[in-house]
Amino acid sequence: MKNRRVGIWFIGAWGGVASTAALGLAALKRNLTDSTALVTATSLFDGLDLDAAENFVVGGHEIRDSSFLQAITELHQRSNVFEASVIEGCKEDLAAWNANVRPGSVVGSGGTIGKLAELPGACKTESPREIVERFTADLADFKKREKLDEVIVVSVASTEPACVPDANFESVAKFKAYLDNVAAVIPTSSLYAWAGISLGFAYVNFTPSLGASFPAALELAREKGVCVAGKDGKTGETLMKSVLAPMFALRNLRILSWVGHNIFGNRDGLVLDDPVNKESKIKTKDQLIQQVVGYKPQTLVTIEYIESMDDWKTAWNHIHYKGFLGTKMILQFIWQGCDSLLAAPLVLDLVRLTLFAQRRGESGVLQHLACFFKSPMGVEGHDFFRQFTLLEEYVKMVRK
Amino acid sequence: MKNRRVGIWFIGAWGGVASTAALGLAALKRNLTDSTALVTATSLFDGLDLDAAENFVVGGHEIRDSSFLQAITELHQRSNVFEASVIEGCKEDLAAWNANVRPGSVVGSGGTIGKLAELPGACKTESPREIVERFTADLADFKKREKLDEVIVVSVASTEPACVPDANFESVAKFKAYLDNVAAVIPTSSLYAWAGISLGFAYVNFTPSLGASFPAALELAREKGVCVAGKDGKTGETLMKSVLAPMFALRNLRILSWVGHNIFGNRDGLVLDDPVNKESKIKTKDQLIQQVVGYKPQTLVTIEYIESMDDWKTAWNHIHYKGFLGTKMILQFIWQGCDSLLAAPLVLDLVRLTLFAQRRGESGVLQHLACFFKSPMGVEGHDFFRQFTLLEEYVKMVRK
Amino acid sequence: MKNRRVGIWFIGAWGGVASTAALGLAALKRNLTDSTALVTATSLFDGLDLDAAENFVVGGHEIRDSSFLQAITELHQRSNVFEASVIEGCKEDLAAWNANVRPGSVVGSGGTIGKLAELPGACKTESPREIVERFTADLADFKKREKLDEVIVVSVASTEPACVPDANFESVAKFKAYLDNVAAVIPTSSLYAWAGISLGFAYVNFTPSLGASFPAALELAREKGVCVAGKDGKTGETLMKSVLAPMFALRNLRILSWVGHNIFGNRDGLVLDDPVNKESKIKTKDQLIQQVVGYKPQTLVTIEYIESMDDWKTAWNHIHYKGFLGTKMILQFIWQGCDSLLAAPLVLDLVRLTLFAQRRGESGVLQHLACFFKSPMGVEGHDFFRQFTLLEEYVKMVRK
Amino acid sequence: MKNRRVGIWFIGAWGGVASTAALGLAALKRNLTDSTALVTATSLFDGLDLDAAENFVVGGHEIRDSSFLQAITELHQRSNVFEASVIEGCKEDLAAWNANVRPGSVVGSGGTIGKLAELPGACKTESPREIVERFTADLADFKKREKLDEVIVVSVASTEPACVPDANFESVAKFKAYLDNVAAVIPTSSLYAWAGISLGFAYVNFTPSLGASFPAALELAREKGVCVAGKDGKTGETLMKSVLAPMFALRNLRILSWVGHNIFGNRDGLVLDDPVNKESKIKTKDQLIQQVVGYKPQTLVTIEYIESMDDWKTAWNHIHYKGFLGTKMILQFIWQGCDSLLAAPLVLDLVRLTLFAQRRGESGVLQHLACFFKSPMGVEGHDFFRQFTLLEEYVKMVRK
Repeated sequence: MKNRRVGIWFIGAWGGVASTAALGLAALKRNLTDSTALVTATSLFDGLDLDAAENFVVGGHEIRDSSFLQAITELHQRSNVFEASVIEGCKEDLAAWNANVRPGSVVGSGGTIGKLAELPGACKTESPREIVERFTADLADFKKREKLDEVIVVSVASTEPACVPDANFESVAKFKAYLDNVAAVIPTSSLYAWAGISLGFAYVNFTPSLGASFPAALELAREKGVCVAGKDGKTGETLMKSVLAPMFALRNLRILSWVGHNIFGNRDGLVLDDPVNKESKIKTKDQLIQQVVGYKPQTLVTIEYIESMDDWKTAWNHIHYKGFLGTKMILQFIWQGCDSLLAAPLVLDLVRLTLFAQRRGESGVLQHLACFFKSPMGVEGHDFFRQFTLLEEYVKMVRK
Repeated sequence: MKNRRVGIWFIGAWGGVASTAALGLAALKRNLTDSTALVTATSLFDGLDLDAAENFVVGGHEIRDSSFLQAITELHQRSNVFEASVIEGCKEDLAAWNANVRPGSVVGSGGTIGKLAELPGACKTESPREIVERFTADLADFKKREKLDEVIVVSVASTEPACVPDANFESVAKFKAYLDNVAAVIPTSSLYAWAGISLGFAYVNFTPSLGASFPAALELAREKGVCVAGKDGKTGETLMKSVLAPMFALRNLRILSWVGHNIFGNRDGLVLDDPVNKESKIKTKDQLIQQVVGYKPQTLVTIEYIESMDDWKTAWNHIHYKGFLGTKMILQFIWQGCDSLLAAPLVLDLVRLTLFAQRRGESGVLQHLACFFKSPMGVEGHDFFRQFTLLEEYVKMVRK
Repeated sequence: MKNRRVGIWFIGAWGGVASTAALGLAALKRNLTDSTALVTATSLFDGLDLDAAENFVVGGHEIRDSSFLQAITELHQRSNVFEASVIEGCKEDLAAWNANVRPGSVVGSGGTIGKLAELPGACKTESPREIVERFTADLADFKKREKLDEVIVVSVASTEPACVPDANFESVAKFKAYLDNVAAVIPTSSLYAWAGISLGFAYVNFTPSLGASFPAALELAREKGVCVAGKDGKTGETLMKSVLAPMFALRNLRILSWVGHNIFGNRDGLVLDDPVNKESKIKTKDQLIQQVVGYKPQTLVTIEYIESMDDWKTAWNHIHYKGFLGTKMILQFIWQGCDSLLAAPLVLDLVRLTLFAQRRGESGVLQHLACFFKSPMGVEGHDFFRQFTLLEEYVKMVRK
Repeated sequence: MKNRRVGIWFIGAWGGVASTAALGLAALKRNLTDSTALVTATSLFDGLDLDAAENFVVGGHEIRDSSFLQAITELHQRSNVFEASVIEGCKEDLAAWNANVRPGSVVGSGGTIGKLAELPGACKTESPREIVERFTADLADFKKREKLDEVIVVSVASTEPACVPDANFESVAKFKAYLDNVAAVIPTSSLYAWAGISLGFAYVNFTPSLGASFPAALELAREKGVCVAGKDGKTGETLMKSVLAPMFALRNLRILSWVGHNIFGNRDGLVLDDPVNKESKIKTKDQLIQQVVGYKPQTLVTIEYIESMDDWKTAWNHIHYKGFLGTKMILQFIWQGCDSLLAAPLVLDLVRLTLFAQRRGESGVLQHLACFFKSPMGVEGHDFFRQFTLLEEYVKMVRK
């Protein structure tokens, strides 16, 4: 629908992914680029009432002192992406959207992310309750000020240290009480999610952080009629794994070992260089193969920060497998992709499909979006093609 | 069923693929190996009445002077495959099966294959009619002598020069008349197929040669109640293409170019070193991507004979694609597989599934076997996972 | 020396290599870039009287209708190289140098190059004598008009079809007579070289075309006191071969096969897509290994035009070798380099070192420049490190 | 010389490298293999009085309960190397040499190596002095029993934890006193070395362990007229680095980052899986690039134990570099080599060259053997070709 005004609220607004998504929206709106890489631009979705690029207004939380244009310019200069003319043509939108960015918080994000904080507002000592209230106010203000019909909260912030939620996260009642505990240890990602869901805003978690993936948040989502999608966008190496592992399984070729080494040099990489943050990332990358093939081959996944690579994530995978009559064979692949540009279109797809579901009156975890995620909430299977079938069946269903 | 006796008649019996399949059957029967790489050994097929390894007797046509053991020993020494103890344990079966091998013919196979001929019987000047009659007699004799319940003809011979069938191939009547024309130009692969189908024997074409893929042969197959499967086994690089191209399509990533270089050094490689023979191979390898993605990126496929590689086919693929906002990215893979050992289990799968269908009273082209072939007869799509779904649906159907 | 004015006359002035070299000179002069990739900027050459960037004036022959800036802009947009600010800062120089470009000729360059011709002057039907006279006049005019102390002619044009010089190329006298033969078949590259050498100008052949590599031209060079360097710049895959082949030789590891597949998409690639032009390129790429290791492993080199790659030449090499006790092992490498940017600094190195030798009174083939070439004139060996030793010994000698 | 009898005493006798070297000696003696991969078999060494294969008798220290044949058979079956006929032909020699193997010690080798110990004699609690005396007796007995003219001690044992020698290692006097200290912490590798050198036996350290690389040992070597070579054989990835880094340096291409990931699955790999042992290995692998290029690019080296790889060490290296005008380019290589078979011939080369030097009356560190080592003792440079020049100059010198 043309006249709808929809707000995207990015957690990590001036990071690479959100800035690229913002640039992409502006460029699509102004016909400065085509729809390549948008899954929702394929014929499968023809005629569905998904939001067009011109419907969107961008805002978000951020901890560093930057701007959409600055983030884009850094990517352009360091990673050699984006045409200068596209940036030029979208400058105005990017500048306007900067006014919608508010300080986030690093209170529960761990030390490595904490060190990145530059905005004074993001470093304040606040209780969880105070943070949630501040976030809620920011979101409500965004909706009102920009006269938005709907708002969706999308987390594209750096990966937090892994967190295993305890009993305090088990129900809405317990979590609300816990928020009042000034000593509570709650990942910031979950505070952002809580604020949005409380207001009835849809929520997408593109990161491996906790976000809304705990019982209390999902209970709240169902109460408020909110759609939740997550988690950890499947952009590159893991996409390949979810495509190749089924091939080995269907051909009954036995995987002996699967080694994946990833190098990249953007801010995400810097954060992942801290073993505490890396752990939760590697975990979501490493569980897939066993699930698909039904046994446990030796697997190894590393992610290393190599500064010169900037946003270009390069993955070498070495798959050692046994064929007929015990013969050992090898498949290797080298993936050279630009992280922000792989992630941004998927973020926009998720935004469009989650808002669509929310308007249809769905709520809770959207299982049909599993093909977009490394750790799909509510779905066991990692086989990309089976996951995609869920999406196709959903589209068939809604068309009826 | 345990007591069934089934004959596999290999065209190219003492080549790498047939010899490996024979060794595999013997080793499975004697519990010297496990069922890795056999698709039909996965749980999908549990409980179906497929033939067990002990049911099979092997025979075939051949043009070179060799033996099953000699072919296996060459692979063992030159390509470093098979355990010595497995070969030792299967020697007896291989020796017994040598007695079922008869001279084929090189009359319609092109000059490069012709040069490989060593058996005097394979080089005789015969008319097409005489060749078909000789082949038919060989096949009938095999069935009678070995007291077989059924026979299946499987072509695993070297690739013939490409052949576009003319009007003479259009109907049973025309083709029968054409066989009497001493100047007729008919690929030998089609004469083998014709002989088998005439006797009501199932037929599998694991090569890109013409075989039974012309109207007259398919008409005969329907008449005689014969199942036909083909063509050109999807063993390595093309399997990867049929898995990766759908990934790019579903993610709306635009393939700019797809380059595939293959090197290998077995007898197949030697034959493919002749451009006339190579042409039909490259054609079946090159059509896939366009079909899957729905547009035509620049593609390049080469197959080169590199003697030192022996049976190890190595393929480097360079896929150049465009992502969001026009960003060019690259995926490369390197496939290092042993050709005969990739092909042999698929051959056994096809044999088991085709015989199963034949016993169920099916006839004509078996479309549900598309996932095994580079050029699946009767099926347009090359997406491996969609092809596999055809097989799954077939199994579901027959279970009812 | 600061006040020297030196002209570089590029054959193929508005091609990728010459334009990049021109941009590089301008950028170095204006301190917009550093000296990375210039061999002559390393400490080995400290204190030698090599020409500085500010000494150079650029001109040349060309057959297409373009300009330095247009060539640079195309590379920038299609191959994603050069910073916009560097181009902006050098615009003025590039524009000024356009005035020094004159129409070349395609008379002896073969049909594929002929098709690229756009400048009317380059397509004129002229006898060899007329062409040489026109070229000589252009060169003399350049020197006079620009008040140059010296001029050097550098061929960076597309590869011509291979040419085996006959008796007419054997001596100055015979070649001069042959120039008057209107039916003479002489590669255009040799006419450019002849014109320059006649005027006493140094000559560098960065291409595999004939250029000055025939007896008559070398005789003339010695007569006129002219330095000649060539041929075929060693930029990427062949550089790797000349580094790795010695490693295998010194470790007594036996190379069984060496396969090299190259893909790229610039204008050179388009010309090399014609088998006639490709032949001479592949020949210079393929001779190296045998020379270094002293026996003949199976080798394969392909160069294929893949449009999407633009100026990015990607080479996959697969080296199969035998180690101790007959064990086969594999080394593979993937080279992803930008052709014009690998070539241009070597061109500037050759220009500086050839002019330096010329001023020292040397003449004829400069053997100490072998490390820069795929087919070093006057030097047998292809081992990069032995070739580099020649350069080091030369520098030591001139310092005395 | 034919009639000389020379003993090689391997530390780690029944490991992969020593067993392969033993098999190689036997196979060469019996003409069951050729001299591929032996540097000393190239023409450079023609006519030098190096020991022939038939001169050698093998013995050594070991901590596990195995045999030469068992080690060879394991490699044959698990890593798919060696021809069965070669093993068969050498069985007798291997069996005879088993009688020369004595229990080593794991007292100073760290816990991970300690866990591998199976021979009771290797686990005894002994003081350093007792161990040295036992080793000395074993070595003297070997020489006497086998009527040997000379003995050389060669360490090919698993990598010990890194050790920084303190003041006790500074002189012969101090170290001798330290040996009497029952609480002394001395790497076992150094006790082996000390025992051998005390007897005047030449010593080669093919591992990164301390061995004889401390002042007291070198002082003793000079006193006793003993030649010492080390350390850490340069077999694969590091060989490549020492060949490629000079190429980048000589071409003035600036290395931005160099990432090397190694996977392998033999016993060495198991030991290196302990971070304490891995540290000393990675250190010797990582220092090279900076030394060759003269600045410090970001480097990363990992070594990971992947069981299915057995003795096949596979290294992926990603080299990111900057060319002309700031253009970033990439070189990647994949090394697939069999560790024991790369190491064994170099071990034999070192044995032959060290014994040759010892007979010539040389003593102390043999700098001309730098090209064989990752951490060449007494030589700063890591450029493989400059290192090889040292060897060539040595040969030239001894020929005079």
